[in-house]
Parts: sequence; structure tokens; C-alpha cells
Amino acid sequence: MSTTTEINRSFVLRAVKDVAFEDRPVPKLRDEHEVRVHVAQTGICGSDVHYWQRGRIGDFVLESPIVLGHESSGVVVEAGSKVTNLKIGDRVAIEPGVPCRRCDYCRAGSYNLCNDTIFAATPPWDGTLAKYYTVASDYCYKIPDTMDMEEAAMVEPVAVAVQICKVASIRANQTVVVFGAGPIGVLSQAVAKASGAKKVIAVDISQSRLDFARKYAADGTFLPPRAEEGVDSVEHAENVAKMIKEEFGLGEGADVVLECTGAEPCIQTGINVAIKGGTYVQAGMGKENVVFPITTACIRALTIKGSIRYSVGCYPDAVHLVASGAVDVKKLITNRFKFEEAEKAFELVKAAKEGVFKVVIEGVQ
Amino acid sequence: MSTTTEINRSFVLRAVKDVAFEDRPVPKLRDEHEVRVHVAQTGICGSDVHYWQRGRIGDFVLESPIVLGHESSGVVVEAGSKVTNLKIGDRVAIEPGVPCRRCDYCRAGSYNLCNDTIFAATPPWDGTLAKYYTVASDYCYKIPDTMDMEEAAMVEPVAVAVQICKVASIRANQTVVVFGAGPIGVLSQAVAKASGAKKVIAVDISQSRLDFARKYAADGTFLPPRAEEGVDSVEHAENVAKMIKEEFGLGEGADVVLECTGAEPCIQTGINVAIKGGTYVQAGMGKENVVFPITTACIRALTIKGSIRYSVGCYPDAVHLVASGAVDVKKLITNRFKFEEAEKAFELVKAAKEGVFKVVIEGVQ
Amino acid sequence: MSTTTEINRSFVLRAVKDVAFEDRPVPKLRDEHEVRVHVAQTGICGSDVHYWQRGRIGDFVLESPIVLGHESSGVVVEAGSKVTNLKIGDRVAIEPGVPCRRCDYCRAGSYNLCNDTIFAATPPWDGTLAKYYTVASDYCYKIPDTMDMEEAAMVEPVAVAVQICKVASIRANQTVVVFGAGPIGVLSQAVAKASGAKKVIAVDISQSRLDFARKYAADGTFLPPRAEEGVDSVEHAENVAKMIKEEFGLGEGADVVLECTGAEPCIQTGINVAIKGGTYVQAGMGKENVVFPITTACIRALTIKGSIRYSVGCYPDAVHLVASGAVDVKKLITNRFKFEEAEKAFELVKAAKEGVFKVVIEGVQ
Amino acid sequence: MSTTTEINRSFVLRAVKDVAFEDRPVPKLRDEHEVRVHVAQTGICGSDVHYWQRGRIGDFVLESPIVLGHESSGVVVEAGSKVTNLKIGDRVAIEPGVPCRRCDYCRAGSYNLCNDTIFAATPPWDGTLAKYYTVASDYCYKIPDTMDMEEAAMVEPVAVAVQICKVASIRANQTVVVFGAGPIGVLSQAVAKASGAKKVIAVDISQSRLDFARKYAADGTFLPPRAEEGVDSVEHAENVAKMIKEEFGLGEGADVVLECTGAEPCIQTGINVAIKGGTYVQAGMGKENVVFPITTACIRALTIKGSIRYSVGCYPDAVHLVASGAVDVKKLITNRFKFEEAEKAFELVKAAKEGVFKVVIEGVQ
Repeated sequence: MSTTTEINRSFVLRAVKDVAFEDRPVPKLRDEHEVRVHVAQTGICGSDVHYWQRGRIGDFVLESPIVLGHESSGVVVEAGSKVTNLKIGDRVAIEPGVPCRRCDYCRAGSYNLCNDTIFAATPPWDGTLAKYYTVASDYCYKIPDTMDMEEAAMVEPVAVAVQICKVASIRANQTVVVFGAGPIGVLSQAVAKASGAKKVIAVDISQSRLDFARKYAADGTFLPPRAEEGVDSVEHAENVAKMIKEEFGLGEGADVVLECTGAEPCIQTGINVAIKGGTYVQAGMGKENVVFPITTACIRALTIKGSIRYSVGCYPDAVHLVASGAVDVKKLITNRFKFEEAEKAFELVKAAKEGVFKVVIEGVQ
Repeated sequence: MSTTTEINRSFVLRAVKDVAFEDRPVPKLRDEHEVRVHVAQTGICGSDVHYWQRGRIGDFVLESPIVLGHESSGVVVEAGSKVTNLKIGDRVAIEPGVPCRRCDYCRAGSYNLCNDTIFAATPPWDGTLAKYYTVASDYCYKIPDTMDMEEAAMVEPVAVAVQICKVASIRANQTVVVFGAGPIGVLSQAVAKASGAKKVIAVDISQSRLDFARKYAADGTFLPPRAEEGVDSVEHAENVAKMIKEEFGLGEGADVVLECTGAEPCIQTGINVAIKGGTYVQAGMGKENVVFPITTACIRALTIKGSIRYSVGCYPDAVHLVASGAVDVKKLITNRFKFEEAEKAFELVKAAKEGVFKVVIEGVQ
Repeated sequence: MSTTTEINRSFVLRAVKDVAFEDRPVPKLRDEHEVRVHVAQTGICGSDVHYWQRGRIGDFVLESPIVLGHESSGVVVEAGSKVTNLKIGDRVAIEPGVPCRRCDYCRAGSYNLCNDTIFAATPPWDGTLAKYYTVASDYCYKIPDTMDMEEAAMVEPVAVAVQICKVASIRANQTVVVFGAGPIGVLSQAVAKASGAKKVIAVDISQSRLDFARKYAADGTFLPPRAEEGVDSVEHAENVAKMIKEEFGLGEGADVVLECTGAEPCIQTGINVAIKGGTYVQAGMGKENVVFPITTACIRALTIKGSIRYSVGCYPDAVHLVASGAVDVKKLITNRFKFEEAEKAFELVKAAKEGVFKVVIEGVQ
Repeated sequence: MSTTTEINRSFVLRAVKDVAFEDRPVPKLRDEHEVRVHVAQTGICGSDVHYWQRGRIGDFVLESPIVLGHESSGVVVEAGSKVTNLKIGDRVAIEPGVPCRRCDYCRAGSYNLCNDTIFAATPPWDGTLAKYYTVASDYCYKIPDTMDMEEAAMVEPVAVAVQICKVASIRANQTVVVFGAGPIGVLSQAVAKASGAKKVIAVDISQSRLDFARKYAADGTFLPPRAEEGVDSVEHAENVAKMIKEEFGLGEGADVVLECTGAEPCIQTGINVAIKGGTYVQAGMGKENVVFPITTACIRALTIKGSIRYSVGCYPDAVHLVASGAVDVKKLITNRFKFEEAEKAFELVKAAKEGVFKVVIEGVQ
């Protein structure tokens, strides 16, 4: 299909803080179940910037160049002989991680835990900021005609939020407190509402983010006060938790707490804001270790769960939520760049200025 | 039934470190659903000693004298008019906490979370170290003829272990690592085995306790080495977790971790010893706050749950486990005292000498 | 509080097909946790009519007169000394069944299974079609000022629908097929939508009910064709199931099936319309025994659950759903009667004419 | 590895009631993840006989010859280049179904529901009654040295029983009634006991099978009486259920019912023998449709689940249960045949004489 002269222009992280455009060969399908997608739009995520600036996240270390980007949409331009769910010309959202399918995690339905996942823009795997990307067809989801390519790129963070809410087993009529009003935070708030949550409260230290959250999906917002001098952090967290419960009529606590920041004070407050027997989900990542109110967690019989990546159904659910208008991702996109401006886009995200929320990069024509 | 001249000899905690025998009036049934039990045997628990020495546990503060003791068996000597499950003369194990039955926790089946539970020997409620104790008949469990009164008193810690294993949802053929080889630890190991666990590993810093655990129910034991100088505690915990996994062939980790110590190094090791997607139960209580590997918990998608007291079925299950011989509680009892020697018994438990495991006090004749 | 001269006018079922108004004494609080409610509005339910016409439902047999009615709202006019959640003057929705609080079902949180529940208008217990009704205060729910008394009476069927959806564990983005477009059917459809269901399909044999369902909450409706001659009922059910799946793009089947009719053809079709591994909830009751495709249920690894009455949280959830406008119960009420016209109201429900959906009776002034 | 002259002697079902030995070519590995196993022992199952006699089970229809057999053990003689869990010479138990790994069922961890599973001896797929069988290495489980090849072949029916108990979520201390005392029935009883079940009751219409069950794992057995004349089948089932509950002290019913016969009277009795809120698992298959007490299932709020094949962990669990001695499969094997006697073995199973329980066929040397 691809002529030999065609090239795959790619935005490559060569080393820490060293990016460049490269003309790579067009990737071949690895097996007859794969498709090749002409990438249309790609969102930038904090992790992309993290690799660029630091070269590692946890055990994943940049040791050779990788293409960046993992939140992408595109059009199928080549399909392996055994592909049945897609055909050339289909517009798709790309799930960036394809697991091994053979380990116990995969076979048990926890493919997000697979040790051998090929995950876009996670060393040593190339990402999607290229003209073409090849991927297993069952990790590629056809989008409806009414959805545009920017929305389809935003399916990725929505799928992260869907997984967070799935891990929390959010049921109708529950009260939910979400720490964080960044992209994943506000999307989690929106997905919680779409799951029938009775009351969703957003907590953040940025008033402008809270203002956005309130307009977006949250029923209420809370800006935690600073600790008074001499009050230790856990005691302050208990006080803040009490304020949140009182201000929003949560009684003994929220049914569900979604922690999307990874910040120690939020974790401490979150544990204290959950109702006895309630559910707390850790989705944000910050310091590796934090001072943690373990006795409270024990006495209050909490269920604390970690959420990581996505599981079966997250992408289809996310596509549906976007397509149906239940989650309006267009409102999140504040800045748009051409492919050639990719580094500028990364610089903007790095700067983390107020008003910059979600940045997308157009694909190579 | 009780003649007016009869008295209720009681072992009373009057204030911190101040205990005395008192002759109190025989307690009356509070309603027609209660029974009065002539107490036969009472085990001593760490929490009894804690109130004696410190006068408080969490929010429960000794403000007026209370009778001590909450692990008791006895014989029904009076039954309210609406009692149908018991009759005078029945030999029983007493569940020490009777909830309000009316709050949302109670109505939802989480009576261990009820804020208004009357719990023996928890301020301001009197305990069972008295001749007589009155209690709701549905929190009193008839024991089979083959079970003696010491075993029936030991049903209480077995019920704690049953709850821990229920919270962990232990299923057949799972691998389980239990931190702690004290009474609750070894009983949790035994209940895990009785639940079909494939491999149960006990971890403790006392070799003699591990030796006991190995003979009792554990399939293997582990004495963690001290941290080398300069290695921080979480890093050491990761190393110890790796050792445990390797020594006992646990692969990527244990399916279930039961933390029965509350000790910070155990908590840190426990989180690292659990398999991705696995379950960690916090049952022990020590420091209120600990340095906690939250990112590991998140990335590994753990489920972390607190276990507190007991829920429906724990007592009947515990009675069955003891009666059937699946859990041999006789082996736990190392020291026996007459009622008049109660203070001596408490001193012995406080001393925490090697060889002293579980201490019981005989009731007033 | 009540003067001795006051009477409790009541609508009594004396024997099969024999109803009458009686002036009974004002009921006294049975204990200090109860409240007395001045009944404001009462909905009529099929079961009320069933007792009136047949005198029994299952094991519940009319052996002495009972007051009818169990879907009621009202105002608290007397409160026992231990009542803390309500005060005189509060406007409430009444949950009609108060369980024993002491059996294993109650203690385990399954109070809908309690054998000793006092359930309004279920022999031998009196119902709510009287001036006053006394009930445990924790089974009485304060309604917001914005909710009127008719809406509050309708909280009962909404709570039934909430329980059905809880039993089904409906999660966001699922597809749901509901058999039946009577009151419980359409309310289940509405609650499913409020729980984030992606697509809710109503199936009924009445086109007018389907038309209502479509306007009310359902995303699509289906009127099953009659079986062709010579086609056996189960085979026909398989065909109808196939039609439903195709017409509504359900792929291999619906994630959840809610059966709210009890009709044999619906049950047979429902089992076939569920996806492999899906959930089917039996909520309707008709013939005691039906021809059932058990091999299909087995091979397709379905989870089939019975739903009966309500559990903790159903009433508060239902109050919230009505108060928030998520479930508009006003649209269900087609006919209103004065208390003195109660028999006429019952006759209307019995006649089951098209256009009669939900009938309410005003309380005694 | 295999010389070109080697042949794969196979026991082939050519058409209904028409079997023959064929010398087929040695099968090649389909991909680099497969292994080739030299089959050592194969158990015969009812389904094998069913295909032989009738040529179909449900939608699976014999349209061209297939090799029979699916309960096998053997030795790895060839391993693909990507196989990491096995090496040549390893002794293994073979899981007979390998799913597609790409459909939603597979990705969600329900690989037993995959529509594209390659299942041994299920048309059009060849089975294991041949010298060699090739299979994906992750569906092949290394057995310990202490386990012999007959035991390893018996891992298959044990895995079926493990799945049944998993579907039932059997927890420690539950009461379990198992309908059927054939191979799957008695193995389910044994696995239930190994899962900590308090009391396991076997029900069958053959006294000799019950005698075996009692010696094998069951705590009690029950031979249902015939229905008296004029008593309809469901009413009789209710009576039998009552007898079982009374005879074995099950109170209001068994926590769990495992139906391993597919017989209509057992299904009807089973539904009535389960406690309110209890779990009933349909594992046996007989008539496609049965008269079913649906109202009882609804009112009693049962959870009814179908069990089919195995899921992740069943094979490893089964290997462990056999290896540890918890489930003694040797006692099940009553008859042994050489490969050349395969038809005689099938005839014996077909005859279903008393005393014939489990029949195994030795592989080609």
C-alpha cells in the first residue's frame, strides 16, 4: 500500500530535553491483525513532557530515541488480512497500549497490568506523533461521523477517567469528591456525573481551575485553606475534610473519593473525607511515598484502590460519552498547533500557565 | 430471677492504672430480647491492657469507671420474654458489641461501623469481667457440648481473624502473606488455611513466635533482616518484599496480604509484597500515620481495605472453626488465672514476656 | 398528643371483594422510635387490588381484616422520645416495610428478606389508607419542600425500580432491555437512564404503553410480534430476542435485562436477549412456574437475580431522583380520588383500561 | 524435530457412530508460541461419547472427521521460539480450549465465552486422542514430579469443578448442596470442601454413587424419594427441598447450590433448597428447557449463574489441588485402556454400568 518513497515524519525524543523531527521509514504491520493509521490529532499529556524533561517515569527509562505522543486519532490507511472490525478509511481513536494477551493479567482481563504492553511513547516504544502509527486493530475504535478528530484524540484522557470511575464502582446517587481539577480531574467529575452521581465536588488549589470545573461538570468546588502555623499536615487534612463534609452536606463523608493529583495533602484529606466503608481511588501520581493516615483507613474500613491506564470497555465507553455529548471534550482544548510546531506545543505545556488546559497537535498531512 | 441479695462481683478500671474489685448490683435485662450470662472464662486482649495503662484508644476515652474484659463465654441464667434462640442453661460465646440496629451502617449490614455500638470494656460501656453480663440474645451464640468454656472465650479473637479473611475475600488456592504472629496473626493464618489458601507465610520479628506459627498453621515463616545502614525504610521494605517473594516462590507477589501488626516496616513491606491487582488488608493498629508507598499502591492497582471488629456470620463461623477442630485455640492459651487474680493476669500480659501468648481469667463461681 | 375523641378513619379489606370504611382508634406508637404520620396521598398498586380480589399473594393470606394501601406520603404528627431524624411537621415518604432488625438477613443488610417484616397492607398487617399510620422513624424519609405529597407517595414505586437497578448493578454505558412498560417498567427505564445506561429499550405488548415509555425515558421500544403457528414458545422467544438485538444494535445481546412483567414469553425472550456473561433480573411476578431456557442460561454464563422490595438506600435514592427531576413521577399519575372514593379508585385500577396508569387517593383531612 | 517419516496415529470420529484409527501427519506448530505435546493419558468425558453417538452438542455439529478426546496429559516434545514457560521434556496437563485473545470476552477475562475458541474434539477442531497435539504454551501447565500422567489427565474435570466453585464464589464455612454424584459432581464436592465449605451434601438418584460421594468428600448424602402419585413435579421438588434442609440442619436453606446433572427435578429442587439471597449454579446440561420455579427465584432473591468450561486460574488451581492431595483423582479412575482399545473404552462409557466411573486411555508410545 505504502509506496517505498513515502516517509514517516516523526517527532522524536532523542535524549533528555533533546527533541527533533526525523524522517523514518513507514512502519510495516507487525502481523495480519494490525492496522496502520494516518494520525490526525494528538493531545499532549503530562507524561510526554515528563519524559522530555527527565527521561524517566518510574521503571521506564529513556535509553534510546522514541517518538513522543500517545493521545491520538486518525484514519485507517492499511489493514491486515485478519482485521474484521475496521476497513481502510475508517476514522478511529487509538488506544495507546497493546498488551501481550498471554500473561495471567491479560488472560484474567487485567490487561492494564500486563508487564509486556507495547505502550506508545513509553520507552522503548515509539509514540504516535508521526505521520503513521501501526496498532492492533482491536485497540483501535471506529468513531461516529459526528465526532471530529480533535474529540477523538481526547478519547484517551476520557478513557482514563472512565477507568478511574470503574475502579471506584461509581453507582447512581453516590456522592463523590474529586481531588484535582486538571484534565483528568474534570473528566473524572464529568464521567462521575454521567454515571449518575448525586453530588460531585471538585477540590483544587487553583481557583481558576475550580471555576472551570464548576462550569464543566462539578456540583460544587472547594479551595482548601492553608494550614495554620503549628498545625501538622495530617491534622490540617482532618480539618479540611471536616470543612468539605459540612459545606456540601456530605454527612459522615463522601461515598467515593477520587484522588487525581498525587499531592500529599490531597491524599491525606481524601482519606479523611471518605465515609466509613467508602471507596477511595488513587489515580494521581506525585511523591512516591507520603505520610498516610493508615489507622483512619483501617478503623473506617475504607476500600482504597489504585487506578492505572484503562481496561476493557473504557475506550468504547469514552467514545460513547464524547459522541453523545455527555462529556464535552472540546471545552478542554485551549491551544492548537501544527505538527511542525510540536516543540512549541511542548514548551507551552511545560510552562503550565494559567489558561492552558489541553494542547493538541495536528498530524502530518 | 436473681435474688435481691445477689451481687455482681466485677473487675473495674477506675482510672488509668487503677483497677479494683467492686460488688455491683446484678444487671437487669435492658429489654425483652436480652439474656443475662454467668461469665465462665474471659481472655485478655491488648486493648484491655491499653485502656488500663493509657485510658484511651482513639476517640474512646475513660472518663468514668468501666468493667474490663470483652472476650468471654458463659452460661445463660436469664432470658427476656422475646428471646427465641437461647434458653436458660445454654452455654454461649458472647459477641462483645451490640449495634444500634437503626443507623444506615446497621441497616446496610455493616454493623461493625455503627457509631452507637455498645461495646464491652470500651468507654463508657462496662465489660465482661464480672459475674454477670447482659447482652442482646442475637449477639450470643450457643456452643456445642464438645466445646469447653476456654475455647468459647477464644471465639472472640477467632471472629476477628474471620472478619479479616472475609474483608480480604480469601478464596481457595490463593497465596497469603500475614504480617504478625501474635494471637490475631496466627489465627488469621489458621483461618486463611481453613479457607483453602494454598500457601500462608507468616512474617514476624520474633523467631519464637514464628516457630509457633509454623507449627500452628503457616506453611512458611520469614524473619525480616534489619535494614543496612544508609538504606531508607521504604527501599528496605522493597528489598524484604523481594526476599519473601523469592524464598516462597510467590512469583510477582502474594494474592493477599494481611497486615496484623500496625508496624510501619510491615505496612511498607506488605504493600510491596502484594501482587499487581492483589488485596492488602490493614488489621493491625500502631502509629496513626506512616510513610506509605502510595505510588506503588496506585501503579500496582492494589485493593487496600481496613478490617475492624466483626460482621454478620463471623461469630457463627468462628464457633464452627473451633468446634470442628479446624482452628485449635487451646494451643494459644499459655496462662490461666482465677477471677481474684485478674490484676496479676493483666500484669503478665503487660510484661509481654516471651512464652506468654494468650491469658484467660476464670469467672466468678 | 392525639385526643381520645379522635378517630382513625380507615379503608379496610374485610374479606375477599369486601371493603368498607371503618372508624378505628388512633394508633399508638409501638415504641419510642416510632412516629405517627398523618397520611396525605396514597398510590394504588397491583398488589392492593390482588388482595382485594383474591385475598392472597403467595404465602400471605387474608385471614382477618386489614387496612389497604402501602404507597404513602404524609406529615409527622407525633414522634417518640428517641426519634432524632424527624420532628413534628416534617413531610415524609413512608417505606412500608419495617423488618425485625435481629435476624441474620437484617443484620447482614438484606432486610428485604426478613421473615418478620411488618409490611403495610400485607396480611396480617394494616396498611396506610387511613388517617394515621405509625412507623419506625428510620423507615420514614423527610422530603424537600419542593416535592409535593403526590410525588412523595410515588417514591415507593421509584424505590422498587431503584432496587431492581441496584440488584442489576447497572453501570454507566451499559445497554439495558426492560420487559414491561407499566409503572415499575417505565420507572426502571428511567432509573436505568439516571444510572448512566447508554441505551434503554422498552418491550411491551401495548403500543400505547410503549409510546408513553418512549416519551418518558426509553431510547427505543419494541412490540413483539405474535408467534407464527407451529413455532414453539421458546423458539419464538429466540427469534424475538434476535429481532431486538438487531433492531437496536445490541450486538451479541444487552448487558442487562430487567424483567418487570412476570409473563412467560418475556422471561423466555429476556434470557435470550442478554449478552453472554450478562445480567438478568426477575422483578415481575406472574405464573409461579414457567418453561425456562436453562441450557441457554448455563452456556451463556448468565447471572440471573431476583429483585424483591427495597434495600438500604433505595428510599433516599428515590427521594433524590424525584426531587432532582431525574425521574418525573407526576407524568405517571392519571387519576386522583378523594379518600371517600377509595373503592371507586380500586375499581378503576382493577378495570385496567388504557390510559389509566397510576391512581392516587388523597388522605383524610 | 519430528522426522518426516513419523506419523500421528489418531482416534478419529468420521461420522456419527463411525470411529477409526488414522495415521495423520505430525501436526506443525501454528505459531512460535505453541508447543507440541506427546500425549500420555486421556480421560473420556460424556461429551466425547455424545459426539460419537449423536454428532452434535448444541450448535456444534460434526460435519467432517475430528479426532476425539480433550482430557489429556503429556510431555512437551517441541516448543516454539517464543515459548518461555515450558521446555522440551516438561510433563504437562493440557487445557483443551484456546481462545482468540482478541474479542471483548477474551480481553475482559471471560475467555470461556469466546466464540472463536479452538476447543479439542469440538467440531471442527481435532482432539487429543492422538500421538501428538499442538497447543498454545500458556494453555499447557507443567505438573510437579510427584504427579503422574493419569492424575494430570484428570486435571481437566477438576478444573471444571474449580470453575463451578469459582462461579459460586464459595467461601469458607458455607453450606453447599451438590446435585449429582458423577465425576463433576463429586469433584465439585471435593473442591467445595477444599474451599472451606462447612457442610457439603450430595444428592443423586444412585445409591452407589452416593456411597462413593460420602467416602470421597461429601459430609452427607441424600437419595430423593419418588413423587407420590398426583403430586406435581414442582410441589414434589419443594417437599424434597424441605427434607434436605431438615435432614442436614440447613435452616432456611443452603448458602450455595451446585447443579451438576441438568435434570429437571434436580433443578426444581435446587432452587427450593437455596437460602434466601443464596447462590445457585447451573453446571449440568440436560433438557434445553425445563419447568422452572421463577417466582420462588424472584421472591427469594436468589443469584442464579451458569458455569461453562474454565477461566484463568482454574487449571493451576486444579493442578495444585491434585498435587497437594486435597483432591484425590486416582480414586475416580475405574478403567484403563491402551490406545488401540479406544473404541472399547468408549463402548464402556456409553454402557454407563454401575461401577464404571472414570475411564482413561493411554497414549501412543
